[in-house]
Amino acid sequence: MITSSQNPKIKLVRALLGRPKERRDAGAFVVEGVRLVDEAAKSNWEFQFAFYDDSLSERGKLQVEDLRVKGVEVEEVSAAVMKSLSETETPQGILAVLKLAQLPIPDLLNFVLIPDLIREPGNLGTLLRSAAAAGVQAVFLPPETTDAFAPKVLRAGMGAHFRLPIHAMSWDEIHEYTKSLQIFLADMDGPSCWETDLRQPLALIIGGEAGGASESAQKLANQKISIPMLGNVESLNAGVAGSVLMFEVLRQRS
Amino acid sequence: MITSSQNPKIKLVRALLGRPKERRDAGAFVVEGVRLVDEAAKSNWEFQFAFYDDSLSERGKLQVEDLRVKGVEVEEVSAAVMKSLSETETPQGILAVLKLAQLPIPDLLNFVLIPDLIREPGNLGTLLRSAAAAGVQAVFLPPETTDAFAPKVLRAGMGAHFRLPIHAMSWDEIHEYTKSLQIFLADMDGPSCWETDLRQPLALIIGGEAGGASESAQKLANQKISIPMLGNVESLNAGVAGSVLMFEVLRQRS
Repeated sequence: MITSSQNPKIKLVRALLGRPKERRDAGAFVVEGVRLVDEAAKSNWEFQFAFYDDSLSERGKLQVEDLRVKGVEVEEVSAAVMKSLSETETPQGILAVLKLAQLPIPDLLNFVLIPDLIREPGNLGTLLRSAAAAGVQAVFLPPETTDAFAPKVLRAGMGAHFRLPIHAMSWDEIHEYTKSLQIFLADMDGPSCWETDLRQPLALIIGGEAGGASESAQKLANQKISIPMLGNVESLNAGVAGSVLMFEVLRQRS
Repeated sequence: MITSSQNPKIKLVRALLGRPKERRDAGAFVVEGVRLVDEAAKSNWEFQFAFYDDSLSERGKLQVEDLRVKGVEVEEVSAAVMKSLSETETPQGILAVLKLAQLPIPDLLNFVLIPDLIREPGNLGTLLRSAAAAGVQAVFLPPETTDAFAPKVLRAGMGAHFRLPIHAMSWDEIHEYTKSLQIFLADMDGPSCWETDLRQPLALIIGGEAGGASESAQKLANQKISIPMLGNVESLNAGVAGSVLMFEVLRQRS
């Protein structure tokens, strides 16, 4: 059992929970909790190792057995060490270090999400969770958007990371990948999404919480669309606006 | 200038930022930041008093002048006192204590939101923000849902509190108010919202993040509806699910 917070693996986990650079350098990221570890295992994601402590639920203990059967190295850590690593107030007693990898981008794209200048991890996670549910095929993250593999994004994503190709890219790369798509920018001043044909192959840009979309996003976009609103309301939460639009795409295509 | 954290008004603000009981007992709640204070002022909400510190922006200083012209008592506090009261990492230098009051419930209801067992303040705030934008006429909060006037709910609500009648009620009262409405419960197992007529006068129940809707909610509901999803996704964020459904109501009625 690991009891020292100076153990190299513990130090690695702590670093991976921090800045994006640490994750890129180590080529790894951390998921916490029975549910996310389960999603990773079910999707056959590559595990580097996992930790648990004795607060782990029965369901979690079965999960530890399953991981060991699959050949994943799982070590027990003391409750104090686990608590020092946990991002949440009530740690679930299990975490795993996974390989930082991307699912491949499909050849024939017809539904892409581009979260632009999204800084709030919870909003990005919500967008990813909704994207996975609405049939988005790939998510392209411009440089200014927060890192998708940060702990809070993973938590709000509820497993979307293991189902969706999520690729950080330059705007030039995004341009290359979306050449054949109609590119819509969510914008209060655009025509109504209900009166816009969203059955064509498209990419949808959702601008940031504070100042809306970036100049690069505005340049890339062919067309604006809005969600009609009543009652003098200025805007919606970015995660909500993106979700309403993604499900409108799904509705029109159903 | 108030510099002591033992000042009775400072102690009152601190209490109001805490438990719902404190807000009910004092009949007051607190909003923080230029934007929310502005929304309260524009909607002619009753102010008890306001505080600012010298970090306040120019826009905020004009706001202080406007409040004083309106007869609101505004006092300067030290930066340290303000910081000790602020819920956010970067305080905006202004907060106001407002009267805990409800806008009246309209006589002819045709669009009501019932957030059931919503515990996460950010989710409730998001639902309120979307409700104000989607034309919801009143929000009824059952006893198990988190308090709408908690600081995080107000922050995520972005001013919805000053536009929407938000009433905490028993299930019996909710039943009384919604007798003439079709009551829909958001549920994965229900028929598609896109194939359900949502133009009729209705109430929409959104269940909690963890276990879905309560027994009382299930009993009250006449009909389930779902948001069709792809890709084996189990559920959406409660704030998102409610928002997608509310805008579907608005779409069908447009």
